Amino acid sequence: MSARAGIVVTGTEVLTGRVQDRNGPFLADQLLDLGVELAHVTICGDRPADIAAQLRFLAGEGVNLIVTSGGLGPTADDMTVATVAEFCGRDLILDTALEERIADILRRLMRARGVASASQDVDFDAVLAANRKQAMVPAGAEILDPVGTAPGVVVPGSPTVVVLPGPPRELQPMWSRAVATAAVQEAIAGRTRYRQETVRMFGLPESGLAETLREGELRIDGFDRLEITTCLRRGELEIVTRYEPDAADVYAELVDLLRSHHPREVFSTDGSLVDDQVAALLAGRTIATAESCTAGMVAARLTDRAGSSAYVAGGVVSYSNQAKIDLLGVDPALLDAHGAVSEPVAEAMAAGALARFGADTAVATTGIAGPGGGSPEKPVGTVCFSVRLADGTSVTRTLLLPGDRSDVRERSTTVAMHLLRGALRPE
Amino acid sequence: MSARAGIVVTGTEVLTGRVQDRNGPFLADQLLDLGVELAHVTICGDRPADIAAQLRFLAGEGVNLIVTSGGLGPTADDMTVATVAEFCGRDLILDTALEERIADILRRLMRARGVASASQDVDFDAVLAANRKQAMVPAGAEILDPVGTAPGVVVPGSPTVVVLPGPPRELQPMWSRAVATAAVQEAIAGRTRYRQETVRMFGLPESGLAETLREGELRIDGFDRLEITTCLRRGELEIVTRYEPDAADVYAELVDLLRSHHPREVFSTDGSLVDDQVAALLAGRTIATAESCTAGMVAARLTDRAGSSAYVAGGVVSYSNQAKIDLLGVDPALLDAHGAVSEPVAEAMAAGALARFGADTAVATTGIAGPGGGSPEKPVGTVCFSVRLADGTSVTRTLLLPGDRSDVRERSTTVAMHLLRGALRPE
Repeated sequence: MSARAGIVVTGTEVLTGRVQDRNGPFLADQLLDLGVELAHVTICGDRPADIAAQLRFLAGEGVNLIVTSGGLGPTADDMTVATVAEFCGRDLILDTALEERIADILRRLMRARGVASASQDVDFDAVLAANRKQAMVPAGAEILDPVGTAPGVVVPGSPTVVVLPGPPRELQPMWSRAVATAAVQEAIAGRTRYRQETVRMFGLPESGLAETLREGELRIDGFDRLEITTCLRRGELEIVTRYEPDAADVYAELVDLLRSHHPREVFSTDGSLVDDQVAALLAGRTIATAESCTAGMVAARLTDRAGSSAYVAGGVVSYSNQAKIDLLGVDPALLDAHGAVSEPVAEAMAAGALARFGADTAVATTGIAGPGGGSPEKPVGTVCFSVRLADGTSVTRTLLLPGDRSDVRERSTTVAMHLLRGALRPE
Repeated sequence: MSARAGIVVTGTEVLTGRVQDRNGPFLADQLLDLGVELAHVTICGDRPADIAAQLRFLAGEGVNLIVTSGGLGPTADDMTVATVAEFCGRDLILDTALEERIADILRRLMRARGVASASQDVDFDAVLAANRKQAMVPAGAEILDPVGTAPGVVVPGSPTVVVLPGPPRELQPMWSRAVATAAVQEAIAGRTRYRQETVRMFGLPESGLAETLREGELRIDGFDRLEITTCLRRGELEIVTRYEPDAADVYAELVDLLRSHHPREVFSTDGSLVDDQVAALLAGRTIATAESCTAGMVAARLTDRAGSSAYVAGGVVSYSNQAKIDLLGVDPALLDAHGAVSEPVAEAMAAGALARFGADTAVATTGIAGPGGGSPEKPVGTVCFSVRLADGTSVTRTLLLPGDRSDVRERSTTVAMHLLRGALRPE
């Protein structure tokens, strides 16, 4: 037995790619967590005929559950509920209690808006009339109360259809409520409960991992009970494995194999990101950055998380040579002798940041992000990194990073995080 | 007459949402540009049965063209070409000339890898055997030569099917070649040639734009010949309008209406981004940044484009108060009197950046990104901005920005760009 699902994403702005769809990936992840097999995601515009065609397609493919997102607003082109009702062979009925709840929400919203902008002169009765449409629900459907102004519905059947609004911040809490309904629980009764674990590696090419996995296939009994997906992202390898709970031993053998073959490259077996690890290692410390090619991206990444002001003092973006000299105290003779993209300059930048900010940890980047500025000795993608701690510890590296300007800058930021992790970790 | 298309995106990592699909949006945009109506985008994993089901669905919906992405690799689970061949009722045939071209590519790749890592001991014949599969093409198909190692194919018919590889950097150039083929030109012969123009606004709420568009509907003759999509992104409104060439006058009236109602908010009618405009305005100048809450994001954004080293000197991320004092020369008395998030401190930060970097243009941000740190007087989202030019011009603003930490930081970065634009623009 199993449970299969399909996702229908509606909305012209998503279909045309001008707005990135966040609901499909969110729902896919949620279904995966539940152990429901996702067969298809389909995207269409606002046309009822296209939505209906996708519903019929998914039903024809035998899915147990369809989840739709979008098209629940008050305007004439928001037709998802009506389309689903027709697809499920149910009449639309005005739910007067729901209508009253929506009116309450609108009254509150308009009061709030009235405070903000007295000039906004809207006819409340006209708004109510437009929103009455949102209180029309398929007969026998369970109602998901609105997070914004649009209610969702769960229509039981084969397949059961869950209708959710488009804005992610409304869809996500309403999805949790939908899962709790009897109709959805029944639709996904055949699901398999999986475990999912993530291993992260840095500094290993994809082909090296593929070779180790091939070895695992030969050496580990029951290897085929692991469903392994690997993904290369910004220089990190993410290995996500799904398995049924009684294959936990097999998974443990895989982790052992990865660790024994790549002890330096495996940096996370509990799903934690390098950002989490660096944040934990920086507790009680003070860090400063000195950035040339990454130009603020390392500082921005370190301060991405709440509470980072406890350990981030600040940084210097020293894009010009003069800034390296004036703001970080880099010796002009070093720049003359080795050039701005060199290990001695990276080291001097880190030392300068440490001193100027009175920090105990510093990281520096200087490199050629391109497209111009490369030379035979220092081609585009050449980046020097240096981490320096107050106790004198120093780690300096030069790497040749692939990709375009944006790739080189992003990957350099990731490398800087890993160098920090390496230097701060007790060994 | 019209031309309709469907897109089939394959790949488990995309279906499960772990990798963000870039091919669907790219192809959607390309089809839109060509005047082809996109009916559906469908996403499935690697299973041939699911791919075949999606192809049948799209054909049933009467599309003239199907474009697939992904599943062209050498491994056993790369089954797209075989699935498409069966769907089109064509045999798979080994193209020996193509096989030789692929072998050439592989030889070059392996030589390059051999230089990088002598330890990589791969059996070339085994590689060739695996890649022979990629030289199997549907009878009568046009071949799209590989950008990586995977060739694409165009299979003429009703619908015509274009099969492209998954990696965006391979798919994109191969798509251009596919469009040039006779089979695709025939499939999209019924397309409507549209013009598409973009207006960008900043500082107007969506409801204000909606009101102006309602007025346009009443006042502009032929308004319904404009296909208008609006999108709110990081505080900017993007208004994209598609129209047939003979509705150019109607579009001109819309632009006039927007300009006359919102002269301060319309900042672009030629599609240019605020980044493009700021870059142009900075030509011949030198800019420095002083960032607290954005912590490097403004510097990173300014240096995002090639050639920015001509006008970006650098910046200071002054996250701590001490950094504001030591690195930017902010008077401790100012911090005591007004707090770090205040207009006097923002102004002092900008002045400090101007002086320390010897720049003629400086921008400063200081604010409360949250989730902590807010107070009744200065709630989370309060951000002070200051732009200062060498001639003494200074523009300072305090805004209350909505959203979570990441929203506040991103939107602050956009606001900083617009303040720069405003201060630098000749009026």
